[in-house]
Amino acid sequence: MSRFLAKRLSSIEPYTPGEQPQGRSFIKLNTNESPYPPAPAVCAALNSEEAERLRLYSDPDLRELTAAIAEYHGVLPSQVFCSNGSDEALTFAFLAWGSQDGVAFPDISYGFYPVFAQYYGIDALPIALKPDFTLDPKDYMGLGRMVVFANPNAPTGFAIGVDEIRKIACSNPDHVVLVDEAYVDFGAESALRLLDECENLVVVRTFSKSRQMAGARLGYAIASPQLIEDLNRLKFSFNPYNVNRLTSLAGTLSVREDAWFCECRQKIINTRAATTKGLRQLGFEVLESLANFVFARTPQLSGEEYCAKLRQNGILVRHFTNPRIADYVRITIGTDEEMQTLLAVTCTILQEAKG
Amino acid sequence: MSRFLAKRLSSIEPYTPGEQPQGRSFIKLNTNESPYPPAPAVCAALNSEEAERLRLYSDPDLRELTAAIAEYHGVLPSQVFCSNGSDEALTFAFLAWGSQDGVAFPDISYGFYPVFAQYYGIDALPIALKPDFTLDPKDYMGLGRMVVFANPNAPTGFAIGVDEIRKIACSNPDHVVLVDEAYVDFGAESALRLLDECENLVVVRTFSKSRQMAGARLGYAIASPQLIEDLNRLKFSFNPYNVNRLTSLAGTLSVREDAWFCECRQKIINTRAATTKGLRQLGFEVLESLANFVFARTPQLSGEEYCAKLRQNGILVRHFTNPRIADYVRITIGTDEEMQTLLAVTCTILQEAKG
Repeated sequence: MSRFLAKRLSSIEPYTPGEQPQGRSFIKLNTNESPYPPAPAVCAALNSEEAERLRLYSDPDLRELTAAIAEYHGVLPSQVFCSNGSDEALTFAFLAWGSQDGVAFPDISYGFYPVFAQYYGIDALPIALKPDFTLDPKDYMGLGRMVVFANPNAPTGFAIGVDEIRKIACSNPDHVVLVDEAYVDFGAESALRLLDECENLVVVRTFSKSRQMAGARLGYAIASPQLIEDLNRLKFSFNPYNVNRLTSLAGTLSVREDAWFCECRQKIINTRAATTKGLRQLGFEVLESLANFVFARTPQLSGEEYCAKLRQNGILVRHFTNPRIADYVRITIGTDEEMQTLLAVTCTILQEAKG
Repeated sequence: MSRFLAKRLSSIEPYTPGEQPQGRSFIKLNTNESPYPPAPAVCAALNSEEAERLRLYSDPDLRELTAAIAEYHGVLPSQVFCSNGSDEALTFAFLAWGSQDGVAFPDISYGFYPVFAQYYGIDALPIALKPDFTLDPKDYMGLGRMVVFANPNAPTGFAIGVDEIRKIACSNPDHVVLVDEAYVDFGAESALRLLDECENLVVVRTFSKSRQMAGARLGYAIASPQLIEDLNRLKFSFNPYNVNRLTSLAGTLSVREDAWFCECRQKIINTRAATTKGLRQLGFEVLESLANFVFARTPQLSGEEYCAKLRQNGILVRHFTNPRIADYVRITIGTDEEMQTLLAVTCTILQEAKG
């Protein structure tokens, strides 16, 4: 830290992303990436001709991409805001709608929510999940501040239903309720159907998980045209060309190729079921996940130990130090083969732990 | 604007980027892009194999890209910070070093500086350029706040020398002096050589202009390791995966291919000389530019009229409504052929104006 840094910022605690190893190859189950490549049309489109066009700025209004996403979801293009990963949409959202009266979010959730609040100096209210890690909608009623939650939540994989989201939105009529649906494509109900009745609802999505494009950095928000206007106001005050040309093209092609999307998603859901079963057979407690990961613990090893043992065996999973969840690890769903390797290695680790 | 937007933000005036037409093709001389493609190695590298890797997150530490840039400039990797276009580096810089005591910048310069300040609610002090549009270093001495200026400046193309930058930096020892060198490769002296003696100096660069990669979105800052740490602190509190995989790869390959860089840069410098001469022969006043654009006016037409006439003839240039510079247009340097067309079309426009 330099002596020039504004004092307020010296105390913020930046987010720690999962390990992205360069060099040594791992079975990488630590950052909820997809084991499958982006849609074939995306891979076919990225060639030297497109690279030559990089000399030109991307469209700051991202018209083609926005239209493709709008068409996919059956909303107006004016209801879609695209961003450099969903993190960027989230940070604009925190500033736009949380900086006046503060923001509330679950205590166990995406670890970035408290960091966004610190970045802007926004008052943050973490709300404890119940002891079983479920979210009680009653805790979010009439809070008088912006409400943010992931649905399904991470790292638990639990989701609440649309009726419960409606109640939360209705009980906070003067504040935005933002549902982070990064993982919704793997089995939860989307809040998108509430858009017409809840003018304060914002849904945030990402291409990183169910569209296999984590490395392209693309996310989006869907809301009323007025709320989308707010996000654009901030984007055009921060980084108008926020999404680059190749990512914009890749995103446009991805949403148009539905068969690949559905196929990959279904494979993840099937592999998740098999992984959950396999881990339970090995004595793990596994939360019933609706996301592309499972959250699990074994009575035989601490989360930290299990994570470290897996790493020694070439498998990366994610462990969080928060005491409430320190027993658990979050395991991204990879291919069937990768998960079979995980189970086999886990079996060996458990035997060693006994012996 | 929605009724949920924080009140402070309802009065900010977002930046208006230059027109990026989709569809109709123009000779595009309005946003300082390069008429040449990125380095051949960049174009060759972007293929379906790289696209398949998009399933994985980019390296949040951008180690390969950072090392390549550091090597190119002969600095340590810990002195380099990469961003989603240089705009993102600038916004982090404003928050890090300007949010406590405010920031000063020239009144006629990159139009985004006052917008960044508004985004964060930072006190901004615009300092008037002299009547001839040159920057008087004395105006920036001992200001007790962060100082930001573009060198060469936009839209004038004028630059100050390294000795003058040193004086500004030395006279503000407790605040950061940031030199935005977006256009430095086209003929001005870089402040990089001052890094060892000025611990408060930050130099910001972009791949958008002299590296022909505006659409890839890549910029960087070079400074002391402590100052770079500040920027990383903010990046990891905002968007850790800020630069996508393909852009990171393209940037790495671009800085390694120096011959192409030097060749394209020299062509722009040569074409700028010919364009300046041609416009002067048509009676234009043309400022002596060290950037990849010229700033010019004719006594025969207002800047707005000339800009509109060119547009009717399929040529886009940039006009600014600020009264001090409303007579002028900023013309990006394209290929020789494009600039010959510009001159021919201008000749016709001037004849029509007379007649």
